This record gives sequence, structure tokens and C-alpha cells, in this order.
Amino acid sequence: MFFASDNTSPAHPKVLEALGKANVGYMGSYGADPIMDDVRQTVRDLFKAPEAAVYLVATGSAANSLSLATFCNPWDAVFCHRSAHIEVDECGAPEFFTGGAKLVLVDGPDGKMAPARLRETIKATPQGNVHSVQRGIVSITNVTEAGGVYSVAEIAALTGIASDYDLPCHMDGARFANALVATNASPAEMSWQSGIDVLCFGGTKNGLMGVEAVVIFDPAKAWEFELRRKRAGHLFSKHRFLSAQFQAYLQDGLWLEMAKAANRAAGRLIDGIGQASDVSFMYTPQANIVYATMPRRIHQRLAKAGAIYEVIGDLGGADPSELMGSRMVCSWCTTDADIDRFLGHLNG
Amino acid sequence: MFFASDNTSPAHPKVLEALGKANVGYMGSYGADPIMDDVRQTVRDLFKAPEAAVYLVATGSAANSLSLATFCNPWDAVFCHRSAHIEVDECGAPEFFTGGAKLVLVDGPDGKMAPARLRETIKATPQGNVHSVQRGIVSITNVTEAGGVYSVAEIAALTGIASDYDLPCHMDGARFANALVATNASPAEMSWQSGIDVLCFGGTKNGLMGVEAVVIFDPAKAWEFELRRKRAGHLFSKHRFLSAQFQAYLQDGLWLEMAKAANRAAGRLIDGIGQASDVSFMYTPQANIVYATMPRRIHQRLAKAGAIYEVIGDLGGADPSELMGSRMVCSWCTTDADIDRFLGHLNG
Amino acid sequence: MFFASDNTSPAHPKVLEALGKANVGYMGSYGADPIMDDVRQTVRDLFKAPEAAVYLVATGSAANSLSLATFCNPWDAVFCHRSAHIEVDECGAPEFFTGGAKLVLVDGPDGKMAPARLRETIKATPQGNVHSVQRGIVSITNVTEAGGVYSVAEIAALTGIASDYDLPCHMDGARFANALVATNASPAEMSWQSGIDVLCFGGTKNGLMGVEAVVIFDPAKAWEFELRRKRAGHLFSKHRFLSAQFQAYLQDGLWLEMAKAANRAAGRLIDGIGQASDVSFMYTPQANIVYATMPRRIHQRLAKAGAIYEVIGDLGGADPSELMGSRMVCSWCTTDADIDRFLGHLNG
Amino acid sequence: MFFASDNTSPAHPKVLEALGKANVGYMGSYGADPIMDDVRQTVRDLFKAPEAAVYLVATGSAANSLSLATFCNPWDAVFCHRSAHIEVDECGAPEFFTGGAKLVLVDGPDGKMAPARLRETIKATPQGNVHSVQRGIVSITNVTEAGGVYSVAEIAALTGIASDYDLPCHMDGARFANALVATNASPAEMSWQSGIDVLCFGGTKNGLMGVEAVVIFDPAKAWEFELRRKRAGHLFSKHRFLSAQFQAYLQDGLWLEMAKAANRAAGRLIDGIGQASDVSFMYTPQANIVYATMPRRIHQRLAKAGAIYEVIGDLGGADPSELMGSRMVCSWCTTDADIDRFLGHLNG
Repeated sequence: MFFASDNTSPAHPKVLEALGKANVGYMGSYGADPIMDDVRQTVRDLFKAPEAAVYLVATGSAANSLSLATFCNPWDAVFCHRSAHIEVDECGAPEFFTGGAKLVLVDGPDGKMAPARLRETIKATPQGNVHSVQRGIVSITNVTEAGGVYSVAEIAALTGIASDYDLPCHMDGARFANALVATNASPAEMSWQSGIDVLCFGGTKNGLMGVEAVVIFDPAKAWEFELRRKRAGHLFSKHRFLSAQFQAYLQDGLWLEMAKAANRAAGRLIDGIGQASDVSFMYTPQANIVYATMPRRIHQRLAKAGAIYEVIGDLGGADPSELMGSRMVCSWCTTDADIDRFLGHLNG
Repeated sequence: MFFASDNTSPAHPKVLEALGKANVGYMGSYGADPIMDDVRQTVRDLFKAPEAAVYLVATGSAANSLSLATFCNPWDAVFCHRSAHIEVDECGAPEFFTGGAKLVLVDGPDGKMAPARLRETIKATPQGNVHSVQRGIVSITNVTEAGGVYSVAEIAALTGIASDYDLPCHMDGARFANALVATNASPAEMSWQSGIDVLCFGGTKNGLMGVEAVVIFDPAKAWEFELRRKRAGHLFSKHRFLSAQFQAYLQDGLWLEMAKAANRAAGRLIDGIGQASDVSFMYTPQANIVYATMPRRIHQRLAKAGAIYEVIGDLGGADPSELMGSRMVCSWCTTDADIDRFLGHLNG
Repeated sequence: MFFASDNTSPAHPKVLEALGKANVGYMGSYGADPIMDDVRQTVRDLFKAPEAAVYLVATGSAANSLSLATFCNPWDAVFCHRSAHIEVDECGAPEFFTGGAKLVLVDGPDGKMAPARLRETIKATPQGNVHSVQRGIVSITNVTEAGGVYSVAEIAALTGIASDYDLPCHMDGARFANALVATNASPAEMSWQSGIDVLCFGGTKNGLMGVEAVVIFDPAKAWEFELRRKRAGHLFSKHRFLSAQFQAYLQDGLWLEMAKAANRAAGRLIDGIGQASDVSFMYTPQANIVYATMPRRIHQRLAKAGAIYEVIGDLGGADPSELMGSRMVCSWCTTDADIDRFLGHLNG
Repeated sequence: MFFASDNTSPAHPKVLEALGKANVGYMGSYGADPIMDDVRQTVRDLFKAPEAAVYLVATGSAANSLSLATFCNPWDAVFCHRSAHIEVDECGAPEFFTGGAKLVLVDGPDGKMAPARLRETIKATPQGNVHSVQRGIVSITNVTEAGGVYSVAEIAALTGIASDYDLPCHMDGARFANALVATNASPAEMSWQSGIDVLCFGGTKNGLMGVEAVVIFDPAKAWEFELRRKRAGHLFSKHRFLSAQFQAYLQDGLWLEMAKAANRAAGRLIDGIGQASDVSFMYTPQANIVYATMPRRIHQRLAKAGAIYEVIGDLGGADPSELMGSRMVCSWCTTDADIDRFLGHLNG
């Protein structure tokens, strides 16, 4: 019963297999491996973006921060949701990589920026006034940190606003596959066709050991990205081992298969919670992340039974009926059996 | 006949095996995996440094730059050899991570800083004068970029000078194992016992897929390093896959075995070159890197035969007898057969 | 009728006189002028802080950003009011100087952080968690940007909270003199005695040409500040001309006299506005800044009469009765006559 | 007998006068003062550059660093002479402002980059190779730190090389007026007509209190410069006091008059030294800076007589005949009488 994070899951066996196959003989380093040529072409085909620049890095923070730094200036505002990973979970990485850009926070339900709030936040940043940071970029996280999912139409609403102000758009797609599966959208629809300029296309949380692709739809930005990646220590010498993971990820739809498994598992969990007494959702769960409140006594029961997930608050507090939050994440390998056991303990 | 770089070599099969073993079930993320606990303890034992802080990152540039940033200020001088990797091959990563420290270059043969030159270079940086950058840190590369190796006594000579000026010392040990093997020194002798404060203990070039350990002998610096690592996107969520590689590396002396193989192969190459006509060494090769000049016609013959190594100059130039440099690197998997074939073509 | 900003006012004639007196013969550069020795001693006496380090820079942004950079890390949070000058009016200078610290915003009336909000904001920044920025420093602006003034007790309430979390405190005192005059506090009471570690003691807005003192109560931080100042291009070679201005400022209480004049003028304006119909204060004005809303027709009448102040909104809009904000600032040289003319037009 | 630096000299009385005249009534802040309009136009006329963007800052380090940051990337090389002010005397300011660019040093006599050395240094920086910093900008100091002066033809030789590699050129003209006077060149000839893209046009060392103009010949860079200036705390609120100084500087050729006086004084000193026994020049003095070696006993005699200048070495050393270096700088107000007294003591 392990729902702590999709980051605690193993990699898919096919990923290990691919590493083994790649581990043969000498091969060009620093991205000059033939596997990367295949990855690049596959990504371009998948996104119907024959000109896109495609890069691999090993962590989501690197992908996000390098992308933002390439698309905005040190004196710019990065508009993002208050709960965005880049704001909350990266120890200031965007500020470090950009040379001090300012994250300007936008509110909205389920971790999604409300279009009206985005527009008013952009408007409140006085462009062309040298005393203020300038309007820089809009960053959209899909799946959101609260477990919500933007539909293609919702993304287009935000990028349309960005476009009114001539701002580029970044997508933190650490769980991009889960968002696609949840909405039945195609990769192209959820990225450049709905106005995204640079996508962090996650792999790590969805069954890889540690690879994220950065897809830059305007190749004019590619060389700057390469320099920033190298300068930040994120260009791998034995790059073939990143390439091989991502190649396996994309082959025969493994990436979508894994995301479907995670979302389906979460669906089972959501159904169960929906029928449980004393448990209520904190946000509308739409992919593989579920936030719910329940009385401390249920948390304690679950903990005793060995369930592992994030508890928001003090498990050892006195009042057994105090409502406390929780965050549960399913991954590609979460089993029905585990969920059913979890629900069993939850229901007492 | 692949002598382009040790970075073009595969990983040792045991490393892949270890990944497979680590890829089972859920495991704490971001360094909270039990394999890392074992790695930490093993490194401490190996270095006889029970208090040392031990971290893993995936690239040498990350290891070096994070170490330098933790041990020096933005307004400091980093004293290093003119040919140091941090100066020449990292696209300014040290400047980026430190917030703009200045690399101040020291000369000396075989890629090694000459002690007298280090002392005079430090002295020429006017400490306590607000107009100048301040004396910050001494960075020593072992094996050097020219293929030389510092003995423990030579390191101590440099760190002694650093100590006269109260400066900490960093070692870029991307090829630390090769240096140990070349000198028969112990890990402790070549690091803290000879005055090194922070060591980048390389694995990638010596048979791993992509892991370098950073060993900080003063644990007071540990937390700052952790924050800098996270903020730079170098903390892996599925950290177990770094841990597993390094665990395999250290187990049963695999790391030393691989370094011995690389150095032995280079020794065979050095012997052959030493007996060849028209070929002369550019530096004294002491580990697994060999620099040599030879006439263009020999380079052309080697290229035609399929030998791959770095040629310094224009292979297609007109004059067949023009001397041109070259860099050849052996790795853990370089075979005698390959070397003998190479020497055969070299000798015509 | 010029109420645009205290920055649009001239310098006091005595400041010019002092420049003339300082402009004689050769004098040590970069702060080694004897006038600075006198300034340093005078500031120490004034603040009853015999150990304080005292520096002069020419702009408020430099004073604030250099102070923050000296007292917090690149990965730290700077807790400040949502309307703070460092957040709103410095084009991201704090982010630039600190190497990417994050300004974390605190709410409260009249531009003042509410103690409860400060505490909960600090608590919500999860210290010791490597994924988050760390708790760094609390920055207090007095006079606030909204024209409010913190009493000594109110400052102590905030610094007490900071102290609970071991955080240092910075005061942006661009209008420090106006705050002192408004509260009858002494310099020591409003700074180190109420928990301030570093004070930006403004001069420019209060009658100088362009000088701010930075007073660092813990001299251990002094050398770092000096290096940061130099490295940022804020150390003046002909430093005597900063020293002379500040010497004149402190002589015979000129600085307090000028602040009193500004506050008294604002008091007259506040009284008049308080009695006017259709005009209401946006915040409680306590020093020399007044925010008020009034119908567009009054703004238009004032503009026609030549009154100059900041109008928040579109002066040319259609609806004459629409309420629009305004910001009026008095300075050391604002005259009663000007205020009375202004009030005359305001009242129609 | 004060030859320590032109920075130790007072400002010209006309500069103080101009401040007095500017100190009347309210005036637009942050550069929106009418005096600046006049300065801008005058500079454009003087340089025959009707499109040039013209900005004022208060220090030379600010002017240089902001210019470099505007014209090069964080991952770029700045090619400059080994003795350049930006390398030696600014505590790493260029690295700070640029976000970590690397100063790559070029040799040559009299503080001037030798064209052949510049070309080979640029060539040795491997452009388009992601592992290396990229070729960024060429920075030329005129008058050089060694007291040499580049002729217009010499500048054109360097900028021609830069142009072969498509690199922009910066001039650190802290003593631009002295260089013009020394070569009889016009401002246009010594700047954009000989290939300079951005000029730091010094005022402080040549009779102002503290103002340097930055002249950007391509106005497309202007807005970025403005943001960088603000963000670095170098935009003055009461900007009129910078404008007034520079207006006075340019009026009726005061700036050239002062530079002529300084160069003429240095000429008298150079003549005297040329005829003295036991004294020899370290570099060829061509403007207002003179480097010379002489025996310790002469230094001691001069010190005893009250002469103040920079002595390179230990004045109190034992050997009276040991040769020690010195640096003497003349300014707009150096008198013949002072020089003659100095020469009298020098000759014993």
C-alpha cells in the first residue's frame, strides 16, 4: 500500500532491458548517440512537429528551469499557479537558472490557473515600466499538483491570454502522459496546437529511471538551450543511457500504457473513497493524484496497517476526529489488490 | 580501435545487474533509499572518514561546480591549471554555479600546477583589497587533462601552499581511480590526508553509466551542498538508480579493477608509441590518457583503418609530413587486440 | 502643486554647500576620505551603536539589495509585505543581488505586515526540507509604501516572530526619518533596539541628492557587504561627495527638520482631505504619503489647475463620477501655499 | 604633490555650479528631467550618432558591467587585456552582472592588446562547441591601464578582427577624453567609426563628481540596458544631478580642456623623468598615467618630501638601490609647480 509518490515506484522492466541493449560497444557521447537520433525523430513524429528541437535531461527541475531560462529574461515575471512545482518544490531552481526571474502567482481551483485570474495578474504587472519586472512567460502544469487536469480547451484559454500579451507558454508536463490519457488528447493537441512553446515531457514519474524530454517547438531557441544545459551540468557524457530509456518509453506506446494503468488505479481509489464515510476530496481528482481529508482515526488506522502516503498534519495528535488532509499517488505499477486493501482499512 | 574518450565506453555489466536488482518495489526517493545508506558507509570506510558527507550526482560538471560553489564565494578566485576541465570543458559551469567566481589560471607541465607558480599566482591576487577578487579555493585535477598524475606528495605540496593562505582545496577526481592505481596511493592518502577538503570521486568515465560521488570531509558544509544540489536540478527523485551504480562500483573493488585495466591498456599503447618512429609524446602519460604528435600521413593511415581518436588539426591538410597532435584515451574495456591493431597501423 | 514623489524635490541648499566645501584639494578615494570617518562616528553615536558598520551608496535599491544579499542566501525566502518597494518597484533587484532568493509576500493593512500573517507565512515555508526555499530574512519597510508607519512596538512584534525562527531582520528605511518623526522614536529604538539587524537609512527622498546609508549592527557582516558593494559597482571613487551629503544631513538635525516639514505638510493635506466631500482615504496616512479616492471630475479639475500627483486609472475616462485612486507625496519643501491651492481646487 | 590617482582630485568648480543651477524646484525623476534631454542630444551631436542611446550612471564599474551584460551572454568569453580594469580592479563585477561570463585575457605591450594575440586568443576559443564558453565580445580600454593610448587605426585593427568573428566591441573609456586629446581623434572616429558598439564615456576621473555616460550606438539594445540598470540599483531617482554634471562637462568643451590639462601636466612629468638619472619608464606613457622604476632611495626621498603616488613594492626595504616601480597619475588640476617640486626631489 504505497501511495507516497510516483517517484517511489520502480522503472518498467522494458526500460532496464533497453539499457542493457544500449550498453554494447563504444558510442558517441554527449548526445551524439544514434539512439538519440531515433528518439528525436520519434518525438517529432509523435507531436507532428518535424522542426522541433528535442533534448533529454535527467530531472524535472532541470527540464523546467532550463526551459524557463531559455524563454525568459532575468527581469521577467513567470506567471504560474500558486501550487506549481516550480514555485513550491524546486528550492528556487527557476530563480537560479533564470538569473533571478520572479514567479508571480495565479490562483484557481484544482491547481489550475483561472483564466480571469491569469489575465488580471498579467495586467497588474506593468509592462514597459522600468521599475517593475516585465511580463515574461506563462507556465502551465498538467497534470496539476492538486491532481486536476487541464483539457485542451482550458490550455488554449490560457495560452490565448498569453498570446494577447505576446508571451510564450511553458508546460510542466511531468505527468504529461497522465494528462493525455485523462483527456484523450493527442500530444500535438495538448502542446503546440494549443499554444505551448516548450514542453517538459516527463518520463521519470511514469516508469523511467530518470529522463525527461524537453520539446522546443521553435528551433531558433535550440542552441541557447544546449549551452544552458551544458553549463548547468545537465548534458550527460554517456547520453546513450538517457536515450535508451526514452526510446523504450515511446516504443509500442509503453508510455501511454503506463499512464493508463496509473490513472485507472487512481480511478479505483477515487471510486472507493467516494463511497467511504467521513472522507472527502480536497480537489477534483482527474488523473493519478488524489487529495482527501479524513478524521485522524482513519489515518491512524491506515498507518497501523502499513499504508504509506503523505499525511498533512500531525498523525499523533490528540483528537481522533480532527480532519486531516492526505495526498495519495498511483503509479504505473499500483495494483488493484493494494488499492482494495487500502480501501478496506480506510473503511475500517 | 576506439580511443576517443572513456566517455564513449559502455558501463560494466555488473552495473546493469545492480540496476536490475535495485528495480524492485517501492523505495524512498530523493536519496532516502537504503542503498544510499550503504554507499555512504562504504565511502566513509574506504576513505577512513567516518564523518564525511557523501552525495551522488550524475555528471562531473555538476559535481565540480556544486563543490566549488559550496566552498567559495561569488567574489573569489578559483586557482586551477590552465588546462583544467573546469576552465576548458564546462561552458562556464563554475562561473554559473558560484555566481561569478573567477578562474585564475596556473601553469605547469603535464597539466599539473607547478607549486612555485601556484604560490606566485595566489600572491598576485591581492587579498583584503576590495578592488580585486579574493583568494578563494585551489582546484586540483587528478588525473590531469594532459594525462599526468599528481603523486600524494605533489598534492600535499599544493595543498600546503593553499593552507599557507587558509584556502580550501577541491579535487576534480573524474579519473580518481586511475590516479590511485597509477600511484598506489589509498583513497584517504590522496584526499583528506593530503589536504583535500572536497573530492569529486568519478565513476562515469570509469565504467558507470553516469554517477559521480562528492565527498565532503567537513560535514558542516553538507546542508549547503544539499540545497545547492536540489536548486540546480541535480537531486534525483529515483535516486536508488544512482546509489545502485555506485554500490556496484565499490563492491569487491570493481572500481579499481576497471581503472587498472584502463591504465594497463594505456601502458601497452604508451610502450608501442615509445618505440614507433616519427611519433612523440606531448606530455608524460601516467594514467589512461596519451597525447602524441605524429605526421599527418600517419593520422591519415590510422583514420583510413578506422581508428577513432581526437586529432588536433586538419586531417585533410596538404602536407603529409606536418606534425599534428592527438589524444588517445583508454578505458576499462579497451582490449589488447585493439591496441595492437592500432599500433600496427601506426607503424605502417 | 507638485505631489508626484519626494524624489522630484530638490536637495536642501545646505547639501549643495557641503559639496562645495568638500570639493577642495586631493582626498582619499573609495571611502578613505576623512569626511566619511566623521559620518561613521556620527551615525554610531546617533544610533548608540559604537560597533556598527556604516556604508554609503547612492540609491535605495542598491542599499536594500546589497543588505539583503549580505544577510540571506540564494535559496532563502525574503518575507515582506505584498506592496514592499523591494517587491514592486525594483525590477527584481533583490533577486539579482541575492542570486535568486524568493520574495514571499505577507499581507496586512496600510502596507504593514500583520504579525499573525507573518507568522503563518513563515510557518508555511517548510524549513529543513530541501525541496523548498528556506526561511531567510524578514524585511520591514518604514514608512510603508501605503503611507503607514510602524511604531516601535509594532516592529518589535514582527522581529520577535523573526527571532522565534532565528531570522535576521532588514528595514527599508527610505523614509526612516519620516517614520521617526511620526512616532517620536529614537534611531536606536526604531532599529537595533527593536530587533533590526541591518537598516537602510534613507537620505535621497528626504532632501539629499542621492545618498543612503546602510547601517549594519553586527560588524561581522561588514567585509562581505564591502565586497558586494564594490562588485556591484556601488563603491564611489570620489566617495567624498557622498560623505559630504550625509554629513550635512546629520548636522544640527537637518534630516529630522526636513522630515518634520514633510510630515507637517502632509498633515495639512490630510486635514483638508478629511474635510472634503467625495474624497476618502485608501489607507491611514501616518507620514508624508497620502492615498485617496475621489471622483474623476475632481481629478480632472485638479489636473486642469496644474496639480501633479499620481492618478491610478484613466483620467480621460467617460464617467465623471467614477471613483479613482491617487497618491500624493509631500517633501521637505512642500509649501502650505501649494497645499492650500490644491485643496482649493479639490473642493472646487 | 599628489599623483595617487585622478580619482583623488576634486570636481571642476563649473560642475558644482551646474548642480546648484539644477537644484531648483521640482523635476521629473529617474531620467525624465529636461537636462537629460539636452545631454542626450549633445552627446548624439558630438558623436554624429543621431540614433545613439545615451545613459548616465555614477561609476565606471557600473558603466562597464552593464554594457558588457547587455552585449554578451552568460556563457560568453569577454576578450580583454590582461591588465584591463574589468579584469583587475572591479572585484569580479563583470562576472556578476553578466551572470558568469568568462574574461579571456590577451597580452600586448603598454596595456594594449596586440592584434595577433587577440586573433589567436579568439581562435583558441572553440565557437560552436558546447563544452566551451562561446566567443562573446571584445573589450578595449582607452587610455589603457598602463598609460598607453590606442590610435584610431589601432582600435580599428582590433575591431576588424572582432568583426571577422562577428563579435561586438566595447570600449572602457574611463579616460576617453585623455585618449582623444592624445591622438587628436574625434569622438566619432574613436568610437563607432572605428567599430565600437558601446562606449563607456568617462567623466569621474576627468573632473566630475561621479558620472559616466554609456553610449550605445545600436538603439535596439537600449531597453535591455535600461532594465539592467534599474535592476542593478543604478538608476538614480534624482537623476537631474547626474544630468547636470554631464551637461556642464560637455559645455564649451570643458571635458576636453580638462583632459588637455591632465595630459599636458603628465607631459611635463614625462619630460622631467626622461632626463632624470636612474629612472626609467615601465611602459610608454601616452596620456596622463606614468609608470616608472627608480631606486628605493629616490622613492624614500620623495615620500619624505610628501609626494603621494603608488609605490609598487616595500618602501621600507633594506637595499637603497633596489629598483621599485611606481604609478603616477595627473589630473585636470595638477599644477606645474607641483610637478616641478616633484622632479626637484626626484633629482635629489
